[in-house]
Order: sequence, then C-alpha cells, then structure tokens
Amino acid sequence: MSDLARFSVNQMTVKQLPLPDLVAACRDLGVPGVGLWREPVQEYGVEAAAKLVRDAGLTVTTLCRGGFLTATDPAGRARALDDNRRAVGEAATLGTDVLVLVSGGLPAGSRDLPGARERVADALAELGPYAEAHGVKLAVEPLHPMFAADRCVVSTLAQALDLAERFPARQVGVTVDTYHVWWDEDAPAQIARAGAGGRIHTFQLADWVTPLPAGVLNGRGQLGDGSVDLRRWRELVEAAGYTGPIEVELFNDALWARDGREVLAETVERFTRHAV
Amino acid sequence: MSDLARFSVNQMTVKQLPLPDLVAACRDLGVPGVGLWREPVQEYGVEAAAKLVRDAGLTVTTLCRGGFLTATDPAGRARALDDNRRAVGEAATLGTDVLVLVSGGLPAGSRDLPGARERVADALAELGPYAEAHGVKLAVEPLHPMFAADRCVVSTLAQALDLAERFPARQVGVTVDTYHVWWDEDAPAQIARAGAGGRIHTFQLADWVTPLPAGVLNGRGQLGDGSVDLRRWRELVEAAGYTGPIEVELFNDALWARDGREVLAETVERFTRHAV
Repeated sequence: MSDLARFSVNQMTVKQLPLPDLVAACRDLGVPGVGLWREPVQEYGVEAAAKLVRDAGLTVTTLCRGGFLTATDPAGRARALDDNRRAVGEAATLGTDVLVLVSGGLPAGSRDLPGARERVADALAELGPYAEAHGVKLAVEPLHPMFAADRCVVSTLAQALDLAERFPARQVGVTVDTYHVWWDEDAPAQIARAGAGGRIHTFQLADWVTPLPAGVLNGRGQLGDGSVDLRRWRELVEAAGYTGPIEVELFNDALWARDGREVLAETVERFTRHAV
Repeated sequence: MSDLARFSVNQMTVKQLPLPDLVAACRDLGVPGVGLWREPVQEYGVEAAAKLVRDAGLTVTTLCRGGFLTATDPAGRARALDDNRRAVGEAATLGTDVLVLVSGGLPAGSRDLPGARERVADALAELGPYAEAHGVKLAVEPLHPMFAADRCVVSTLAQALDLAERFPARQVGVTVDTYHVWWDEDAPAQIARAGAGGRIHTFQLADWVTPLPAGVLNGRGQLGDGSVDLRRWRELVEAAGYTGPIEVELFNDALWARDGREVLAETVERFTRHAV
C-alpha cells in the first residue's frame, strides 16, 4: 500500500484552488481523497462537484460541515435543523458517508455551557435518523477549548462521545482532529473508547504552532511545524481500530497566500515525513 | 462584612499604575488586597514595596509568579530553580504566603507534554520544602489549553492536583482562575477535590471575551463582559471551603490604555455586580 493510500486533503487547506484545479492537483500528485466544504461546493454546484470528483476517481472523505445547533429561539433552531438536513443531502450527493458537525457556541449573552450542549444532543436526536436514512454518519467534532464560547461548546473527545453514545454509532460518532485534542491527556483513552464503539468517523491532522493569530481560527500549522506528535496520534487511532482516511485540514493565512499546488505538494511531503 | 472584604486586585490588572499610585488608589477605593508581580516589585525594590503596602494596611494576597520549570538542560533547570527560590524569598519579604507557579511550556523542538509535566513534578519536590521553610505555599496554576505549548504544560485543574497531591498541601496547592477553567466541565469536581484537600491556595477572576487577540495573552476580559458565570465559580470554591481572597487578574490592552484609577474603580464595581 502506498504511503498516500489513506491520505486526504481537506479543501480548506488549499482554499485558493478552485475545485477543478484542486481535483487536477490531486490527480497529478497521487492524492486519492478530498474532504470538501459546503460553501465552495455549493458555489460550484453540488451535482457538478460530485461528477467532477467522481470522474477523477477521487474519494470524498468528509463533507465539512454541519452543526451550529445551539440556538435557543425556535426559529433559529428550525433554520439550523433545516440547514443540517440539506448538508446531509449534499454529503449523500457527493458520495461521502461522513458529515462533520461543529456544535456551535454560546448564544449571545448566554453563559450556560451545559444547556447549550444539551440542545446539541436534542438536535442529534432529530438529525441522526435522518442522516442514517441517507447513508450518512454524523461526526461530532470537539474543538479546542479556546473555541468554547464562540464556535463549539463541545471541547473534548469525552464530551463528544458522551453525546454520540446516546445514539447508534451508524448515526453519530466523532471527529478526532489532532489540533483540537493534542493537549488533552485524557484524549488517548477517549480515542480507545471511540474506537471500541466504532465511533471514529474521521481523523484529521494539523499541527499546533504559536503565536496564535488574532481570532485564533487560522493558525492551524503545517504538519511538522509545531508541537504535535502526529505519528503518535495516528498510532493511537490505528490501535483503536481506525483504518480510514487521514485528512489534512489546515486553516492558515500564510499557506493560503502561497501557490495552492505548491502547498499541496508540500503537505503531501510533510504527511509522508511526519505522519506515515 | 463589606462586599469588598475579600477583594484583591492583581497588579497586572492596572499595570499602568506605578506601585505607589496603586497603593493610593486601593486606599481611596477601599480595596483591601493586592496581588503583586515580581518584575515591577523588583524595579521598585522588594523591601521598599513590602514597607509601602504594609504601611498602607494592604494585604498581599499572592506573588505572581514563579514556575517555568520545564527546561531539559541542567543549566537551564538550575537557573529556574534558583529563580524560584528567589521568588519564594520575595513572597516571604512581601508578607504573602502564596506564590503562584506557571509551569512553563514545551522546550524548543519538544513534543513531549508528559515528560515536561514530570519535570515540573521534579522541581516541585525541590521547591516545596524550601517554600514551606519560608512560610510560603506554591499554587500551581493550570492555564487554558491554548497555552499548553508555549507557556504552561499543565492545562487542567485535574492535572494541577495530580501534581500537587504528591506533596503536602502546606507546600503545594493550586490556583483556580476562572479564565483558565471555565470551559472545563470537570472543573467543578476538581474544585471540590482541591477544597477537600485544603489545596485552593488562591482564587482568581477574569472573564472570557472573544475574539481573542493575536498571541492570546492579553485578552482577559473585564468582569461581566464575557461568557463566564463568575458568581457560580465563586459559589463553587466557597462550597469547597475556600474563604480566602478573591483576586481579579486582567491582562487586557484596552484596559491598560485607560486611566488606571478609573479601571480599578470599574473593576470594583464589576466585582460587586457580578461576583458578590
């Protein structure tokens, strides 16, 4: 098996590449998988995007992302559920069985993290069966605790699994992303728990580099540039039974400012050096 | 008992105020306690600072901060231990029995968080008895996980207590700072554990506001401006038996740009409104 057999590039890593250019670059570099994002796929057209990647022989490893399920007002809540049902449909059209979910942050003025997490659980109860009916699994992604207020009230794998385990694994599992969990000494045990339950629905890589940029969203480091022992995390998910795609997802202003093909080639090389 | 009887202002909150101005402002506003920082105290002179605050009838609630104990090279390690022994001496001179410790981050190029944490434990074994002999307790402060790489490899109260409990509580306890623990659903249980062991050596308040600034260090929010239910955390430490000072520690460029007395008056008002 080639070193790249399980490699997937998340579309955001090289968001400067239009979708056809990304597909061509993957073909040229021997990249077999892509994780797609809803907004650029919608711009291109979901059916057209599905045909483009299918014709190129690419596997769509995930669709990012659904979620944002913490609204308290009925209208906001209904809109979020509708949008997530659309995301499930898009995932099915694209031929991936994994929809990554980012829970959402605290509603404006709220300080109630447990309440927000409970609303995520309520939403999963509605979305899980819908996703299953469309052949899609929901992958709840814990984000780093620095996002707890404004983006994701689920901060650890333990919390994500506490949510997921209320539902069948074929409906709800988790995303393991090194950037979000690397600091957590409980994460290895939670990976084992997730693997035992068949709930590792996707595994994503990014490195942790400092100083963090303002807003902290676009500071995900190129593999090998930071503090994360990427190979160790890969070994942990594999020891837990995960044999699926390994998706590299970087949000990084410096990488976005460069030539996208060059960044993808670099990412492939870094993956081979630091994660295989 | 006045609402301010347990209030303390950390010197960094109004670092624009020279020490004599801070002391005068505390007197004018009825603030009974201050948490001091080593660098401005050293500039003023430790003995002189001790006399200044003592003559004003102020209680020094903590000295911030020792720590940075993760070096691997023997020379760096010896320097850190020497510096921490000096910090213990300074705390004793200032008349406080609490020295806050920030563990330090990963050494350059290292990806070994558990190894770094173990070096912190080794250092505590040397510093704990020294501190006790000088009437000072070490308060290991878990910092938010966003600081795990570059500032503090101890990211949760559970980790801080795992370290502290290797030693007598009169030598080593923890700092509970709302800014660092507010996201952690395990923190309430850990506060109970810390209180039962007599290991809450200081309690600090700051609010969590977004977006975080570049570098994320100086984004600690004024009380009431953010996502932290400050009163709930105060009730948690009190339910755990803590009856000591409550120190407000803000690092915030916008607050530092304003008149220091005005910021201190605002902080007193916010404390009374949101934390009492």
